[in-house]
Amino acid sequence: MPHQKRIAIIGAGPSGLAQLRAFQAAAEKGAAIPDIVCYEKQKDWGGMWNYTWRTGLDENGEQVHGSMYRYLWSNGPKECLEFADYSFDEHFKRPISSYPPREVLRDYIQGRVAKAGVRQYIRFNNAVKAVTFDEATRKFTVTAMDYSADTLTQEEYDHVIVATGHFSTPNMPEFPGFASFPGRILHAHDFRDAMEFKDKDVLLVGSSYSAEDIGSQCYKYGAESVTTCYRTKPMGYVWPENWEEKQQLVRVEGNLAHFKDGSTKRVDAIILCTGYRHDFPFLTDDLRLKTQNRLWPQDLYEGVAYTPNPQLFYLGMQDLWYSFNLFDAQAWLTRDMIMGRISLPDRTVMEALNQHWRDEELKIACDADAYEFQGAYIARLIAQSDYPSFDIEAVNKIFLQWKKDKKADIMGYRNKCYTSVLTGTTAVPHHTPWLWAMDDSQDAYLRPPTKPDTRRRERTTRALIPTKKLAASTTSKRLVRGG
Amino acid sequence: MPHQKRIAIIGAGPSGLAQLRAFQAAAEKGAAIPDIVCYEKQKDWGGMWNYTWRTGLDENGEQVHGSMYRYLWSNGPKECLEFADYSFDEHFKRPISSYPPREVLRDYIQGRVAKAGVRQYIRFNNAVKAVTFDEATRKFTVTAMDYSADTLTQEEYDHVIVATGHFSTPNMPEFPGFASFPGRILHAHDFRDAMEFKDKDVLLVGSSYSAEDIGSQCYKYGAESVTTCYRTKPMGYVWPENWEEKQQLVRVEGNLAHFKDGSTKRVDAIILCTGYRHDFPFLTDDLRLKTQNRLWPQDLYEGVAYTPNPQLFYLGMQDLWYSFNLFDAQAWLTRDMIMGRISLPDRTVMEALNQHWRDEELKIACDADAYEFQGAYIARLIAQSDYPSFDIEAVNKIFLQWKKDKKADIMGYRNKCYTSVLTGTTAVPHHTPWLWAMDDSQDAYLRPPTKPDTRRRERTTRALIPTKKLAASTTSKRLVRGG
Repeated sequence: MPHQKRIAIIGAGPSGLAQLRAFQAAAEKGAAIPDIVCYEKQKDWGGMWNYTWRTGLDENGEQVHGSMYRYLWSNGPKECLEFADYSFDEHFKRPISSYPPREVLRDYIQGRVAKAGVRQYIRFNNAVKAVTFDEATRKFTVTAMDYSADTLTQEEYDHVIVATGHFSTPNMPEFPGFASFPGRILHAHDFRDAMEFKDKDVLLVGSSYSAEDIGSQCYKYGAESVTTCYRTKPMGYVWPENWEEKQQLVRVEGNLAHFKDGSTKRVDAIILCTGYRHDFPFLTDDLRLKTQNRLWPQDLYEGVAYTPNPQLFYLGMQDLWYSFNLFDAQAWLTRDMIMGRISLPDRTVMEALNQHWRDEELKIACDADAYEFQGAYIARLIAQSDYPSFDIEAVNKIFLQWKKDKKADIMGYRNKCYTSVLTGTTAVPHHTPWLWAMDDSQDAYLRPPTKPDTRRRERTTRALIPTKKLAASTTSKRLVRGG
Repeated sequence: MPHQKRIAIIGAGPSGLAQLRAFQAAAEKGAAIPDIVCYEKQKDWGGMWNYTWRTGLDENGEQVHGSMYRYLWSNGPKECLEFADYSFDEHFKRPISSYPPREVLRDYIQGRVAKAGVRQYIRFNNAVKAVTFDEATRKFTVTAMDYSADTLTQEEYDHVIVATGHFSTPNMPEFPGFASFPGRILHAHDFRDAMEFKDKDVLLVGSSYSAEDIGSQCYKYGAESVTTCYRTKPMGYVWPENWEEKQQLVRVEGNLAHFKDGSTKRVDAIILCTGYRHDFPFLTDDLRLKTQNRLWPQDLYEGVAYTPNPQLFYLGMQDLWYSFNLFDAQAWLTRDMIMGRISLPDRTVMEALNQHWRDEELKIACDADAYEFQGAYIARLIAQSDYPSFDIEAVNKIFLQWKKDKKADIMGYRNKCYTSVLTGTTAVPHHTPWLWAMDDSQDAYLRPPTKPDTRRRERTTRALIPTKKLAASTTSKRLVRGG
């Protein structure tokens, strides 16, 4: 009997699930696939998309994986992340809006893998503690804590696929005065419910997606004021009147935050929107990817195979414009490399190619360059496997429109609709504008838009926000330009 | 050259530092001591006594070790935890009060080990990831992440001493409704600054030391109300009028907490004071102590040597009445076992003795039985090593008085003074009653009690607390009996 390869996938979030679906798709077409074990430390699949009220450590004492918050809605059009093998139409059986809330997106993610029947491969409540590689046997040993059995396990594998994401370990700088700040300091990773900051003066340190979106959450749910601050340049959106963009935070003194331009602001809470670190505490030095969050991390051939040891793969480690469909393209390619359908060149060739793409990455000058670079990367991957092709040029155009819509109305862009490049279906507006939709549940989202009900709900929830703020956000004349 | 034993100590908190001091004390007397490496994941010594504003993960992405909060003062008399080889008089050169704040106690802890010169043994920023034991070589391999060098290290040892404490990994039960509670839910482990809960209605789930003390903190710093709840029986102190003890929490609905007796309370924040777990994620199954928080954990001969493999030791794993001096007694004994001054009996004898002490533990019927049981244990250990003896009977009497003083005035007991059994020095009252002492810094604590300054400070800080609450706590007539 020939040796059947054994594959370990670490993580059952969007990228790990993409990998399971990739193998199952091959099996469905009659191929003999390897023996697969997917380790997942949470008790359910979905990765980052599993909301938990917990912060810090989970019920097993493991680092909480997710950075998900209660009222998160997609901050990019769903038409940019649609699975090419499982459309939104197939899942929801009817058009929905372009920016669904978290429960709805999670439902979509799990719908595909439930249909594929890959749950059997996953060991839940299993946290990978160590991965080592034996040069002699050319095998990996994966050590995992099985919390259900309260025991450590060790098993050998021919390949390991790291699918643990890079939005779990916060980058948390310290600023002078933090140790005596008389209020809460947290990282975006621990942000859960905007209602915790109702009536508060909130400072968000940072000017990227977390600051923009968590600030918007706080505004929506009734923060007294929102202050964001930047190192290089302001986000520059047209912010509501109680939102101010400031230069870099320098220090805090008691409740008073001091900024680089000498100005100050009294704040009740500080949320560090200072990004995440690519962190793989379970990997030995020789296996560990070391990278910043960038479009072309070094040491990954075709963005997936770890060149110092290409029996090891990483999924989704790029700075992400594309997401679910990028993971898919990578997972299908990884599968074909593991199954021997695609052969890898010599290490020197792989490294030269890496350097080529790094050089190309360095030429990127604007956002459009960035998503076009990533779109072209995905196209190259898809061309090598049987992952269904889709119109990447058209998706790039949606990214462009999304940027314009945000610029025009940062508190209203989620009410816009786009057209699927897969199905041609145009999204329909959600029954309630984002700013007034306080209930983020799938039930509320999918319920028929019965006008009277909607109005009653709006009256109830509007009371959560001081009248002046709603006014500021729903008319343009009281808006001020940020930065 | 004879083989020099190599010893790994995991943790440089009070128990790990006690172990370093124990070895150094032997060296000072001319003994040849083993080669020692102490791994510490924090960047300084002090363990739990290092305050950090961080919660969840530290700057290296490691679990934050400490559960220390800004305004913590000792909740037991310092006369019960005094090092027998380093008195408070020796450190502070003058009498201080009986319940010092955290900075002052931390200064005392580090004063002894600074004098002993043991800092050289400690590898800071080193998190132990794995400890394994090889039956053939009878050696341990310790794998640690050295964050300063960004590399994993592996070294072999003859003995490992686990000194990581048991107040770092929260026990965090979930109650129905937590996922939709529109406010903050945290464990006592993540409690930092009571000012975060000023003007809030705070629910503390639990009725042990954390609930009692964090509730008192919240009260002191101006919480609107404090509610604690119990499974078995109320704490039963005479609480301020805005503090209520309720039966067990059953569920929350929105902001409304429901209790077992059918009553409800609207709350803004929930603090889980539900204890900690003995958690050793770096140990293989065969080395891992499994125990609840109890006076006599199983599998530890003399409370320290792990009977399934007595080359491995655990310090301070008992439910603690005594603390620093208990760690010392254990560390001196552990040292002598490792240095061959004390031989261990056969495993069957060790296990029989363990069972004997477990049987004795089960006879404990009241608090006095408990601290007397632990005092007698310490006396047995001290009798076997050269750790300086002290009057344990007299310390037990201080515990008794402490319990009485708490019962009489839960918000005032920290103003009481006791007499050191080592030096005969009677503590002096702090210049400001605990309830009015808002600044917990060592500077404020040690400054001369210049009356006018004190009054100005009090006037400033008193404004933080609504007048009715100060009145309630400083006169007895408005107090109500809890439970």
